[in-house]
Amino acid sequence: MKVIADFSVTPIGVGVSVAKHVVACQKVLQEAGLEHRLHAYGTNVEGEWDAVFAAVKRCHEVVHAMGAPRVGTVIKVGTRIDKDQSMEDKIRSVETKLRGER
Amino acid sequence: MKVIADFSVTPIGVGVSVAKHVVACQKVLQEAGLEHRLHAYGTNVEGEWDAVFAAVKRCHEVVHAMGAPRVGTVIKVGTRIDKDQSMEDKIRSVETKLRGER
Amino acid sequence: MKVIADFSVTPIGVGVSVAKHVVACQKVLQEAGLEHRLHAYGTNVEGEWDAVFAAVKRCHEVVHAMGAPRVGTVIKVGTRIDKDQSMEDKIRSVETKLRGER
Amino acid sequence: MKVIADFSVTPIGVGVSVAKHVVACQKVLQEAGLEHRLHAYGTNVEGEWDAVFAAVKRCHEVVHAMGAPRVGTVIKVGTRIDKDQSMEDKIRSVETKLRGER
Repeated sequence: MKVIADFSVTPIGVGVSVAKHVVACQKVLQEAGLEHRLHAYGTNVEGEWDAVFAAVKRCHEVVHAMGAPRVGTVIKVGTRIDKDQSMEDKIRSVETKLRGER
Repeated sequence: MKVIADFSVTPIGVGVSVAKHVVACQKVLQEAGLEHRLHAYGTNVEGEWDAVFAAVKRCHEVVHAMGAPRVGTVIKVGTRIDKDQSMEDKIRSVETKLRGER
Repeated sequence: MKVIADFSVTPIGVGVSVAKHVVACQKVLQEAGLEHRLHAYGTNVEGEWDAVFAAVKRCHEVVHAMGAPRVGTVIKVGTRIDKDQSMEDKIRSVETKLRGER
Repeated sequence: MKVIADFSVTPIGVGVSVAKHVVACQKVLQEAGLEHRLHAYGTNVEGEWDAVFAAVKRCHEVVHAMGAPRVGTVIKVGTRIDKDQSMEDKIRSVETKLRGER
């Protein structure tokens, strides 16, 4: 089952700056070979359900290993069986309509 | 790795009433033997990472099988390595403090 | 416009224990006179859109005033124009169906 | 109070395709003059708390007016009082670190 997901990982108890933990998690996605794109409040990722969630779990493990006693993550995940759709398709579908209406 | 999680499943393309899909997902959690509690905007669940996420995946499969072409889920998941904490502990910790301050 | 919402506030940069901040936010909801119920991963709340979101904003202000340099919140909010539904109605609708199928 | 937020609006009960509702909500953000950027699972937006949440409320109103009986939205919102940070800053902070480690 293919998914388009979005997630943001928050380490708790490591102070106010969390960029290095986000970086570590980006590398987990790269190593997993998953299509992903960072935005200002999380990361979009697409792939098979198990691969995507294995990467999120690995992020928790890595961020704990960096010293975070608590890690909280918000994940949004969408699946559809009516058609195949990529992250690019979703964005293009909206942007095309937006341009058409101007 | 033990998790406390919260998730809400939204079937898309099946009309306005989604209670039967929520029910189907509650049964997935019962069959998985996972500690869980329904609230007005999702379900709290605790257990091992793999068991919890296998149940969420199973919810998507079941809700698709009921006819939903799209399913979107929001999951919040927390892990901690500093101490063992249950869903009950989290709620009690806040409620005890609330009572103490009244 | 009436809403049923769910939100969880996470202070960042104040260490690992955040229960006192959650307590402060519960008191904001009480003072606002909003129907609310704590669960293990957030708080359900219902009321008029403006009152609910004013309370969430007040939570950020209060938690910053307690010393948190960063605050992150996840809010789920639902509105419907087809019928009036309370938090209790949502839960009862699922629980009734669950019992009926056993 | 300045916020960086991310939100995704889901109309319920209007069928499987929701792109036109997303488009309508993008136009709400444009008309509000808020800095925003669409991604594959929502939209980043920054601005003053009240302006951002007024736009999210307007999205619900517009999507209901397009015929959706139910609308559900997930919002992540972050505030910080230790420094001023834009959406661009957040992304650049991670990307710079990522490049530095390659």
